[in-house]
Amino acid sequence: MNLNFASDNVGPAAPEILAALVEANSASAMPYGKDPFTTRAQDMIRDTFEAPEASVHLISTGSAANALALAALANPWDAIFCHHEAHIEVDECGAAQFYSGGAKLRRVPGANGKITPDTLGAALAEIPPQNVHSVQRGPVSLTQLTELGTAYSRAELSDLTAMAKDAGLKVHLDGARFANAVAAAGCSPADMTWRLGVDALSFGGTKNGCLGVEAVVFFDPEHAWELSLRRKRAGHLWSKGRFLGAQIAAYLEDGLWLSLAGAANARMAELCAGLADLPEAKIVAEPAGNLVFLTLPKPVHDRAFSAGAAYYSYDTDPEGAPDRPVRARIVCDWSKTSADVAGLLALWRG
Amino acid sequence: MNLNFASDNVGPAAPEILAALVEANSASAMPYGKDPFTTRAQDMIRDTFEAPEASVHLISTGSAANALALAALANPWDAIFCHHEAHIEVDECGAAQFYSGGAKLRRVPGANGKITPDTLGAALAEIPPQNVHSVQRGPVSLTQLTELGTAYSRAELSDLTAMAKDAGLKVHLDGARFANAVAAAGCSPADMTWRLGVDALSFGGTKNGCLGVEAVVFFDPEHAWELSLRRKRAGHLWSKGRFLGAQIAAYLEDGLWLSLAGAANARMAELCAGLADLPEAKIVAEPAGNLVFLTLPKPVHDRAFSAGAAYYSYDTDPEGAPDRPVRARIVCDWSKTSADVAGLLALWRG
Amino acid sequence: MNLNFASDNVGPAAPEILAALVEANSASAMPYGKDPFTTRAQDMIRDTFEAPEASVHLISTGSAANALALAALANPWDAIFCHHEAHIEVDECGAAQFYSGGAKLRRVPGANGKITPDTLGAALAEIPPQNVHSVQRGPVSLTQLTELGTAYSRAELSDLTAMAKDAGLKVHLDGARFANAVAAAGCSPADMTWRLGVDALSFGGTKNGCLGVEAVVFFDPEHAWELSLRRKRAGHLWSKGRFLGAQIAAYLEDGLWLSLAGAANARMAELCAGLADLPEAKIVAEPAGNLVFLTLPKPVHDRAFSAGAAYYSYDTDPEGAPDRPVRARIVCDWSKTSADVAGLLALWRG
Amino acid sequence: MNLNFASDNVGPAAPEILAALVEANSASAMPYGKDPFTTRAQDMIRDTFEAPEASVHLISTGSAANALALAALANPWDAIFCHHEAHIEVDECGAAQFYSGGAKLRRVPGANGKITPDTLGAALAEIPPQNVHSVQRGPVSLTQLTELGTAYSRAELSDLTAMAKDAGLKVHLDGARFANAVAAAGCSPADMTWRLGVDALSFGGTKNGCLGVEAVVFFDPEHAWELSLRRKRAGHLWSKGRFLGAQIAAYLEDGLWLSLAGAANARMAELCAGLADLPEAKIVAEPAGNLVFLTLPKPVHDRAFSAGAAYYSYDTDPEGAPDRPVRARIVCDWSKTSADVAGLLALWRG
Repeated sequence: MNLNFASDNVGPAAPEILAALVEANSASAMPYGKDPFTTRAQDMIRDTFEAPEASVHLISTGSAANALALAALANPWDAIFCHHEAHIEVDECGAAQFYSGGAKLRRVPGANGKITPDTLGAALAEIPPQNVHSVQRGPVSLTQLTELGTAYSRAELSDLTAMAKDAGLKVHLDGARFANAVAAAGCSPADMTWRLGVDALSFGGTKNGCLGVEAVVFFDPEHAWELSLRRKRAGHLWSKGRFLGAQIAAYLEDGLWLSLAGAANARMAELCAGLADLPEAKIVAEPAGNLVFLTLPKPVHDRAFSAGAAYYSYDTDPEGAPDRPVRARIVCDWSKTSADVAGLLALWRG
Repeated sequence: MNLNFASDNVGPAAPEILAALVEANSASAMPYGKDPFTTRAQDMIRDTFEAPEASVHLISTGSAANALALAALANPWDAIFCHHEAHIEVDECGAAQFYSGGAKLRRVPGANGKITPDTLGAALAEIPPQNVHSVQRGPVSLTQLTELGTAYSRAELSDLTAMAKDAGLKVHLDGARFANAVAAAGCSPADMTWRLGVDALSFGGTKNGCLGVEAVVFFDPEHAWELSLRRKRAGHLWSKGRFLGAQIAAYLEDGLWLSLAGAANARMAELCAGLADLPEAKIVAEPAGNLVFLTLPKPVHDRAFSAGAAYYSYDTDPEGAPDRPVRARIVCDWSKTSADVAGLLALWRG
Repeated sequence: MNLNFASDNVGPAAPEILAALVEANSASAMPYGKDPFTTRAQDMIRDTFEAPEASVHLISTGSAANALALAALANPWDAIFCHHEAHIEVDECGAAQFYSGGAKLRRVPGANGKITPDTLGAALAEIPPQNVHSVQRGPVSLTQLTELGTAYSRAELSDLTAMAKDAGLKVHLDGARFANAVAAAGCSPADMTWRLGVDALSFGGTKNGCLGVEAVVFFDPEHAWELSLRRKRAGHLWSKGRFLGAQIAAYLEDGLWLSLAGAANARMAELCAGLADLPEAKIVAEPAGNLVFLTLPKPVHDRAFSAGAAYYSYDTDPEGAPDRPVRARIVCDWSKTSADVAGLLALWRG
Repeated sequence: MNLNFASDNVGPAAPEILAALVEANSASAMPYGKDPFTTRAQDMIRDTFEAPEASVHLISTGSAANALALAALANPWDAIFCHHEAHIEVDECGAAQFYSGGAKLRRVPGANGKITPDTLGAALAEIPPQNVHSVQRGPVSLTQLTELGTAYSRAELSDLTAMAKDAGLKVHLDGARFANAVAAAGCSPADMTWRLGVDALSFGGTKNGCLGVEAVVFFDPEHAWELSLRRKRAGHLWSKGRFLGAQIAAYLEDGLWLSLAGAANARMAELCAGLADLPEAKIVAEPAGNLVFLTLPKPVHDRAFSAGAAYYSYDTDPEGAPDRPVRARIVCDWSKTSADVAGLLALWRG
C-alpha cells in the first residue's frame, strides 16, 4: 500500500511513458530538438488543442515553463497579476522575476485560490495606465487547477480574460494540473484555453505521469523565435531533446494524459466520499481534481503519520490545545489505488 | 551500421543508465531532491572526486551547469575569461550573461582551442584592477576536452590556474567531456580538478551516455545554498529529482563513466589510425578524446554524405574549386562501434 | 505669491547652493569624483553623521540612491520588506527590481505610512528561512519622513531595526525627507540612523533646496567598492562630479540643510494651525514635517484650483455628491513663505 | 594659465549655460520633466535635427544615454557591434550589459578608432542569422568623434549604416563629442545622423560646456514611452528636470554648442600646428576635433608634468629606455585659450 500523498510528484512515471523513453533510446537522433520525437510531440499538442499555428516549446520543469512564458509576455517594468497563493508568487523563488528581467508580481486576493473580477479590477485600478512613476500593467496569470485544488469554471475564466483583454493585457495559464482540470470539466482543451482568451499555457506533464516535461504553448506564434532563444539562453534546450518529445508524445497518445488525470481525480473523489463518516475532518475548499486541503484534529493526523502516511501538514498553532486542527494537503497522483485511499482513510479513522 | 557522427548527443543512453531510470520509477519518492537517488549521486560524486566537502547540484543541461557555476563565481560587473571558441562564448546564446546579470565574456585566443599563459596574461593586463570605469576581473573558465577536441595537460592547467590564483581569481572548468579527458589522461578526477586549483566543475553526463544530466561541483561548499537558490530560480530544480540522481549514480557505478568515455576515445583513435591511408584528409588538431576536426576534399565529403553519413561540416568557400577542402567535425559517442568507424572511413575512401 | 504646493521639487534651489555651484565652476577640476568638492562633501557627511568610516556615494536622484543601496543589500532572490505605500514600491517604476537583478518588494501594511512590529513580524513569518522554493528574506527598507508625512519615533525605528537584526537582516532608510525628520526630532543624524541600527541611508538633498543630489551612505564601508561599480555601471558616476559635491558641501555648511527643512516644517505647522477654522478640511495623518494629506470638500478644492493653487489631488469618487471629499497632498518646500501658506488657506476658506 | 588637458570634463560650464541654470531657479516649476524648460529643450533638439517626430529624453550622463539607447535597440540575447576601443566597451563598467539585460558587446577592430565595412562584415559573418545556439545580431554602435579623436566621414558612416540596414540592424551613434564632429564637418546635424541612417543618438552636452546633461534622441518615436520607463526605472528621471532642460536650451541657443566645440577644435589645431617644431612628438591619429593621442619621449613628458601640466599618459614599457616614448591623450575643452595651448607646447619644448 502506498500512503505517500505528499505531491503529484511522488508518484512514478506511467509505464507507457517510460516505455516511450526506452523506445526513443533505440536509435540515434539529431540533437537540440531536431529529432522526430520532438516534432511529433509538437504536432500532437497542436492537434490536441486544435491550434495548428501554435508555437510549442518543450521544457523540463513547470517553473521554467511559467517563467519562460511570462518573460515573453511581460516587459521588465511590468506587473504580472496573479493570485496571492499562485505557484509563481509563492513557490518558484522569483523565477518570473529572473526570466523577465525584474517584472513585479502583483498579488491579487480571492477565496478558494481564485482571482475574481472584483479583485482583479481592484488590482488593475491600482496601476493607472501612462503613469511613468509606476510599473505598468502586464499579463494576467491564472492557475488551473488552482493551488487550492479548486477550478475556475469556464465562465469565470472568460470573465477574467475579458477583463484582461479590455485592458489590453495578455493572459497566461499555469496548467501544471491542466489535465486534471480538463478531465474534470469534460471539455476540450481548446475550450479551456484559446477559445476563452488564453494566450499562453504552461501545459503540465511532470505531475501527471511524466518523468519531467512540460510544454510552453503560445496560441499565437509571434513569440516563437523569441521563446526558442529565451529557452536556449536559460539552459533549457535539451541536447537529447528526443527524451522530452517521447514523453509528451506518449502522454497524449490515445488520451493517456486524460486517463491518468481522470484516475487521480477519481481517487480524490473516493477520498472525499470517505470523509463523510469522519466529521472532524473538514474540507477547506471543495476539490475539483486531485488535490485537497483539509483540517484534521491533531491526534487524527498524528495517528496517520505514526503509521507511515505522508502528506504536507501545517500545525498553525504549535502551542495550541492537544486536539487543535492541523492543516493538511492531500494529493492523489495518477498511480494511487482505491486501496491506497482506503488505507489513508482507515488510518485517520483509527 | 550507425554513420551519424554529428555529436556525442546523437547517441543513445547507456543501457545501465536507462535501467537505473526504470528502477528509480518503481516506487514513490519525495520530490525536489529529497530522495535517496539524489543523495546517493551526490555522495558518489564526492567520493569519485575525493572531495567530501564538495557541494553538488544536479541539473539537466550543460549550458545551465556552466551558467549556474559562473553566476556564482562572477559579479555582474565582471569579465569572465574564456577561450574565444569556448562553448559558453559561442554556443550558449548568452546563458552566462543571463545567469550572471550581465557579466562580460572576455575572449582569450590560443591555438588548438587552448588558452595559454601568454594569452591569458595579455587578457588580464587589459583589465587593471581598481579601475571603476572598466568591468572587473572575474573568473577564468577553461574547457576540458576543449571545443577542438584537444586536452590541456595537467601542467598546462596548473600554469593557468596558478596565474588565476595569483590574480585572486576563481577557476571554472567546463567538463562537458571531462570523462573523455580523464579516461585519456588516466589520472584521478581530483588530479585534474581541485588538486590543480579548479574551484568549480561542470561535470558532464549527457554527452557520455546519460539521457540528460550534469553536475555542478564546487569543491569549496561556501556557495552551496546560493547555488540551490539560483538553480531553483532558473527553473532547474527537478520535482522528480530521482530521475537525475539515478542517472548519475548509474553513471559512476563501477566506473561506467570512464568505460563509456574510453570506448568513445578508442573509436576516435581507430578513426585517426584509419586516416593514415587517406592522406587528403587532414587533422586540424590532434584529438585527445572522442572529437576531431578534419579537412576533407569536397568530393570525399560529398560521397560520404550521399551515402548517409552525418557530421557537421563547413564549406568555408562555397565559390571555391570543386575539390576545395571542407571542414568537418567528427564525434564518436560511446555507442559507436569499430564497424561504424570503419564504415565511415570506407565511405571517405570511396 | 507662490501657490504651488505640489511637491518639495517645485521649489527652487537655495541661493547658497546655487552660489556654490557657480563657485565650483570657476576652475578646472579632475573628473569622476577626483575633485576637492566631492572629497569635501564626503568628509562633511561623515562628520555630520559622526561616522568616520562611512562610505559615501553622491548620486543625482533619490530613486537611484534607493535602488543602488538596496541592490548592494539584497540578493536577486531576496524579498525587500517595505511599506505598501513606500516610494520604492509605488513610485520608482521598479528601480529596485532593476538594480537588484529581480529582488521582490514585499508590501508590509501599517497605518499612517508606518510599518509596525506586528506587520513586519507577519511579513517575516510568511518567508520562513531555508525554504528553497521561496524568495529569501532580504533587507528592511523604512522611510523617514514617511510617504504620508508622518515620522517614526526613534523608539519605533529601534523596535523595527531590532526585529530586522534578530532575523539577520540589514536595514535601509529612505531619507528623501531625512532633513525634515531630523529638524522635527531635534536629534542628531547619528541618533536617527546607525545608533538605531540603520545600515544604509539614502540621504536626500534634492527635495530640500538642492538642484539634484543625494548621497548613499553606508555606515559600514564593506560595500564601498561594490557601490562605486554599481553606480558607474548604472551611468550615475558624474564626470563633472564637482557639481554634485559642491551642492552637498553647501547643503551641510553651517547647518543649512536643517535650516531649510526647519523652515519647510514651520510653514506646514502654520498651515495646520490655519486649518483650525476650516473644520471641513480633515487631516489624514498628523504631519511630522513638511507634507500632509487632507480631505477637502470638492467645492473648497475647486475654488483653490480655479484661483491658481497647485497640489496633487485625488477625486476618489468622480460620480459622487457635489460636496464629496477630495484627497489632497500639500507639500511645503523650503522656499514657501508664511504669506504663501496664508494665501492657500485664504483660497480654501473662500 | 590652465594646463589641465586631461579631459573635456575638466573644464567649467559655459557662462551662458550657468546663467540659464540660475534663471531656471527663479520660479517654481512642475517636477519630472513637466516644466517649460524641458519642453523647450526637446523642441530645440527636434528643430536642430530637423526631426519634428523625434523622441528626446534628457539624462545626466553619457554612459546612461548610451546604455539607455542600446537597451531599447537590443534584445538581451543580442550582440551589439562596436569598435574594440569604444567607450561602451572600455569605459562604462558594463552599463550596456546592465541596461539591456545581458546583451553582449562584440568588439570590432579597425585602425584609428574606426570600424570599417570589412571589419564589420567579418563580425556580422561570425553570427549567422537563425542560429539558436548563438547570440543574435543586434544594433551597431558607432562613435563620432571616435575615442581616438578621429572622425568618420559621412561616406564612411553611410557605408556602415547601409551594411547594418542590409542586415536588418539598427544604428546607434555615441555622440559624446558630436558637437566637435559637426563643427569640424560643417554639415547639418541631420546630415550626420538620420539622413545617413542613424536611428538613435547620444547627444552630448557635458563634455562641451554643460554641467551634466545629454540627450537620447530617437529619430523614430516608436520607443518613446519605453525610453521614458527605462529612464525612470534607472533612476535617471530628474525631479527638478528644469535644470537639465535649461542647460540644453542654452546649449542650443544661437548655436552656442557649435561655437564651444569650434573653439575647442581650433585649440587642438593650434596644438597640432605647434607640434611642427617638436618632431619627437608623434601624432597617433590625425585629430578631427579636440582630442589627440601623441607619443612623447619620456623626458619631454616628465618635464611638462613636473611643471604642472595634466593629461592622461601611459608608459607602456616601464622597464624601457629612459627616453622611451610615452603615450599621451590631450584634450582641449571649450575653455582652453591659445595661451594655454602655447603654454603646454612650451613645456614640452623645454
